[in-house]
Amino acid sequence: MKKGTLYGIGIGPGDPDLITLKAVKVIAACRHVFVPKSKEDSESLALNISRAHIHPNAQVHEILFPMTSDKEVLDKSWDDAAHSILRVLETGEDACFLTLGDAFLYSTYIYLLRRLRKLQPHVDVVTVPGVTAFSAAAAAAECPLGQGKESLIIVPTADDLEEMKRAVRSDGTVVLMKIGKRLERVLEVLDDENALHRSVFVSRVGLKGERVVNDLRSMRLEAPDRGYLSTMIVKSAKGEDA
Amino acid sequence: MKKGTLYGIGIGPGDPDLITLKAVKVIAACRHVFVPKSKEDSESLALNISRAHIHPNAQVHEILFPMTSDKEVLDKSWDDAAHSILRVLETGEDACFLTLGDAFLYSTYIYLLRRLRKLQPHVDVVTVPGVTAFSAAAAAAECPLGQGKESLIIVPTADDLEEMKRAVRSDGTVVLMKIGKRLERVLEVLDDENALHRSVFVSRVGLKGERVVNDLRSMRLEAPDRGYLSTMIVKSAKGEDA
Repeated sequence: MKKGTLYGIGIGPGDPDLITLKAVKVIAACRHVFVPKSKEDSESLALNISRAHIHPNAQVHEILFPMTSDKEVLDKSWDDAAHSILRVLETGEDACFLTLGDAFLYSTYIYLLRRLRKLQPHVDVVTVPGVTAFSAAAAAAECPLGQGKESLIIVPTADDLEEMKRAVRSDGTVVLMKIGKRLERVLEVLDDENALHRSVFVSRVGLKGERVVNDLRSMRLEAPDRGYLSTMIVKSAKGEDA
Repeated sequence: MKKGTLYGIGIGPGDPDLITLKAVKVIAACRHVFVPKSKEDSESLALNISRAHIHPNAQVHEILFPMTSDKEVLDKSWDDAAHSILRVLETGEDACFLTLGDAFLYSTYIYLLRRLRKLQPHVDVVTVPGVTAFSAAAAAAECPLGQGKESLIIVPTADDLEEMKRAVRSDGTVVLMKIGKRLERVLEVLDDENALHRSVFVSRVGLKGERVVNDLRSMRLEAPDRGYLSTMIVKSAKGEDA
């Protein structure tokens, strides 16, 4: 019997209208929809965005990915998820796995897929790309990401301050993702580098409570969760006089 | 009288199904659709992708952007385009401008918008982000763009070989865009850096004649136009043993 196909789908940054036609079609055709969920969420954001497109008879499988850096705990979660998906595919039915933003950009899907390929190297997988959070942030702030011959550097965490500094000192534009609780530290670095005036901050883009700050010299820290679902764009120092 | 709004729309990398719901809705609602066109194209690719969504009564304005690096010629093109769009907005009607990929990532739209803001600083503009060519290339080649704490560096042209080398030697993943006629030179650099085995090449992603090469050691140069609409992803050297 022919086994099913897994569709890994990037559903975009949060605005339900920033999903692609391809994602909508594939989601609607699948009878098994897998969505990641962290303990902190009362509800999966990915599920929320896609709900309108899920077939009424489809079975929704919420997969808990604990918010931890404990490799053993994470490995077990991915392993469990991969096995659940394989069980569906082995019945001949297709399944989709939904992930925020783009499917291959700092997503849980990457780890899940690696796990799946280890268990079943020849499983059929189709990946559907999506709009990234930084593209949506750039659009909301009217801030170009890359122009001319300038590079664009995406720094996924603010863990390594030295790497962040190197990027900010380069000739290109820099995107800082997953800032979270490190927001205060990031602002300090940007101040030290005299880059606050060329930096923008966008949080909860396309969602309730969206916030855009166009010049970080005027940014006031407001609440303890202010760095969640947020992106910063540091424009290139070179482009200032363009 | 209230003036119209310009919608700058990233329509995705080429596959007509990789357009967002938001783009479809906005395009369908506009009676004036502006599309960029280069002399080399017999038909605008952006127009081709979006044709199904354009209202039958809408007026399509093709704007010629000459394939040149002559700043004076380009400035005049953007200026003409900005004036044409302003003439529509002044009648109170909305207009949209379509651009391939994401609206703010190495697009003509960036320059057009700058021009427009110079002429009319307070014109109403809404930008709709889109799926980038590199996200689509990553999906087609099943090649993650960024994972864990590794940076992602987007290098838009292969003009500056030293910059390309620096990026390839870094710890992150590297995307090379707009390779065009420089493909042979790029392959030489990757060979010198011993990076061919961790590089993938995708051209015409989602279009007729799509080509995916997963290990560039096996890549044969095939035709003089082989670098057009192509993207390379150089996986991080660090990730090899992940």
